[in-house]
Parts: sequence; C-alpha cells; structure tokens
Amino acid sequence: MSTELKVNSYFNDSVKSIALENQEGVSTVGVMSVGDYEFGTSQREYMTVVSGRLTVKLPGEATWKTFSKGETFIVEANLSFSVKVEETTAYLCRYE
Amino acid sequence: MSTELKVNSYFNDSVKSIALENQEGVSTVGVMSVGDYEFGTSQREYMTVVSGRLTVKLPGEATWKTFSKGETFIVEANLSFSVKVEETTAYLCRYE
Repeated sequence: MSTELKVNSYFNDSVKSIALENQEGVSTVGVMSVGDYEFGTSQREYMTVVSGRLTVKLPGEATWKTFSKGETFIVEANLSFSVKVEETTAYLCRYE
Repeated sequence: MSTELKVNSYFNDSVKSIALENQEGVSTVGVMSVGDYEFGTSQREYMTVVSGRLTVKLPGEATWKTFSKGETFIVEANLSFSVKVEETTAYLCRYE
C-alpha cells in the first residue's frame, strides 16, 4: 500500500528531512538545527519556512536576508547558498 | 551545539515526523502516506497542512472535512480523530 517514507540526514544529523511526492510535485519537509550551513542544489529549489526563520545569502547576492514562517525563496539548479539558522526551523523544499 | 533531531515513526512507518522546539513552541513536522489513520492527542494539537491535503473527522463531528495546504484544524487534549490521506501529505503539528 503505502510507499516507504525516506528520511535523510545531513551535516552530522543537524539537518533531517522526509521525502514526499504528491500533486504539488517532489519535495522534502525537514528541520534544521541552529547552525551555519552551505547547501548545493541539483535542481531548482523552492524553499518555504514552515516554522522558525532562515537567514540566507542567495547565490550572487552580497547581503543576508531573513525569511520567516510562510515565506519562500528560490534557488536555481547547480548553485550553492548559505544559511544561518538562529532558532530550530522547519522547512518545505520543493524541487523542479 | 545542535541538539539531536528526533525522528518518530507510526503506523508501520506510514507516518514519520521530526520533532522541533523554537519560538513558536513545540512541534513536529511530518509526512503521512496515503491511508486511513486514527490519532489520539495528549495535548491540544494545531495541525496545519504543509503540502497535500487531509480529510478529517474531528471529535464529536458527524461529517468529514478536507483541509488543504495552509489550512489548520485544532484538536483538544485526550481525544481521538480520524484522518483519510488521499495523497502523500506533509503537516506541521504544534502542541500546547
């Protein structure tokens, strides 16, 4: 019946996510612990803050911007971006 | 540094969640596979659909109601409620 739900773990378990696929597309929902991270994309990513906030330096940007609950930022494929997490934060990442 | 992120699994791994605590309170973010579930509460729960949809029969209600992305329902403590999941769905559950 149900397909297996895959859990992924990154940065020594400081970030964990669960994969899903539905009518909206392919996504992961996850949690980032407090810390600084550098992520790379292999597809375009739509990152939405579900609870908490993420302070992000997007590719090619010189400044940091904070995204709060309900806000989304987009990162194109094959780029990297930096994230500062100042409180534990849940996110939805949709891939295109 | 970072606290450990705890992953929980329910209903033979058909539902998995990751716990978090931040300025919003104590929550889990998770994914439900397609299926029918009966959940019990030990605290008041604020359930928000993050991606997908949940069709829910709340305690004391005779009819089913569907909640879509961004919508929230509340269940008081020590009650049970039924959920039909027709597409894989991500949710945020905040406890009070």
